[in-house]
Amino acid sequence: MNTIEVCFSPALFQYKTTNDNYIVVIVDILRATTAFCAAFDSGVTRVIPVSGLEELFEYKNKGYLTAAERDGKKVDFADFGNSPTVFLHSSLSGKELAYSTTNGTQAVEMAKSSGNIVAAAFVNLKVVSKWLISQQKNVVILCSGWKNTFSFEDTLFAGALVEILEQSGGFAHICDASGVSLSLWQASKNNLQEVVKNANHYQRLVKLGQQTDLLHCFQLNSSEAVPVWDSRGFKNLPKSNI
Amino acid sequence: MNTIEVCFSPALFQYKTTNDNYIVVIVDILRATTAFCAAFDSGVTRVIPVSGLEELFEYKNKGYLTAAERDGKKVDFADFGNSPTVFLHSSLSGKELAYSTTNGTQAVEMAKSSGNIVAAAFVNLKVVSKWLISQQKNVVILCSGWKNTFSFEDTLFAGALVEILEQSGGFAHICDASGVSLSLWQASKNNLQEVVKNANHYQRLVKLGQQTDLLHCFQLNSSEAVPVWDSRGFKNLPKSNI
Repeated sequence: MNTIEVCFSPALFQYKTTNDNYIVVIVDILRATTAFCAAFDSGVTRVIPVSGLEELFEYKNKGYLTAAERDGKKVDFADFGNSPTVFLHSSLSGKELAYSTTNGTQAVEMAKSSGNIVAAAFVNLKVVSKWLISQQKNVVILCSGWKNTFSFEDTLFAGALVEILEQSGGFAHICDASGVSLSLWQASKNNLQEVVKNANHYQRLVKLGQQTDLLHCFQLNSSEAVPVWDSRGFKNLPKSNI
Repeated sequence: MNTIEVCFSPALFQYKTTNDNYIVVIVDILRATTAFCAAFDSGVTRVIPVSGLEELFEYKNKGYLTAAERDGKKVDFADFGNSPTVFLHSSLSGKELAYSTTNGTQAVEMAKSSGNIVAAAFVNLKVVSKWLISQQKNVVILCSGWKNTFSFEDTLFAGALVEILEQSGGFAHICDASGVSLSLWQASKNNLQEVVKNANHYQRLVKLGQQTDLLHCFQLNSSEAVPVWDSRGFKNLPKSNI
């Protein structure tokens, strides 16, 4: 039986108990991992997470497409912010995208040492679950949170993934964080678009006029992307591998 | 309006957003803060949290009573483990107690810099709430967790405290962690003794034969203790101050 553990913040990743044979599932529903999926669906060939804006600016000078947001807002020099719906309406075939966000990139930095990383969101829940079940490894779900604090929307996603993995018969959750995520998801899933309005970052994005993105971020299974980590960023797994 | 924030782990305390005029409520339901209350109810005049066992041994040599547990088990040289019911059945009038636990002491260490600390558990929920409402300061609820990971039972307590403080009309929660704690509490409170059986540390203590303690730790309002921090440890507030 494979285990499932949930970390509610990148700052808690170092305290996880799963140490062998695991895949880290990075989650940043609002909006980095949702946006990664959208970028791949629009033809991007690679997403390169970048921590700082200086490094991102160097990528821009080398000719990469760049995306960056701080506190929910697009950074001026970047080609894109953090909006998945803007990616979806762009034609990005064959392009490589350097990407810096407040929270999502930090989670990737934390997880890099594990080697196996996949980026997940409600939009690719089904296809990521299918791939994880095929891998038969332990799973650590790493919620990006908000500046290292707990995020409701990432937790609901963690619960949704715990539910599917456990229903497959090959996985069992091993910590209170994963059990609570599952409970919260099961209490919310029939009314997801309403329940998530209680999340702080949802309200922050409403104030920034991002209602179109918010609807998109909680629509399940609209994407076929499975962004997996290789040494130089995320690549989209070919469908034949899923 | 005073704010309420919840930290799910001592490792997340540094990321709290409340920085002015606040009281830290330390929570370690299983079992440190429950045991602090029991020790005060049995006549202890001071509880001195101690991190390491070497430091605790020095206190023993100086004539203090000592309490220590590691991984749920009493440390050999200590007079007591972490069992509130053992404290309740002891006569400790006028004694000072040096206390080292796996998780609770660490939370105290994190919070010391704030100056204002109170130790809380289900057993003293009512009297601690009354005191907090009288103080009219912001509240940061610091869950001790388990080795820096999330604990279900501490979170349920946080939700219970959020509920009472908000019902007083003078407080509002400001983060997703406090909102989720409240939801979990409201879904669990009518069946608390059953629901908490899902907590990992509850199951760990069942295996160690601590059923009597477990019953005690989830019985509300059996204690009148309000353990507040002064520079040298916790003292029990005189009833006239509450």
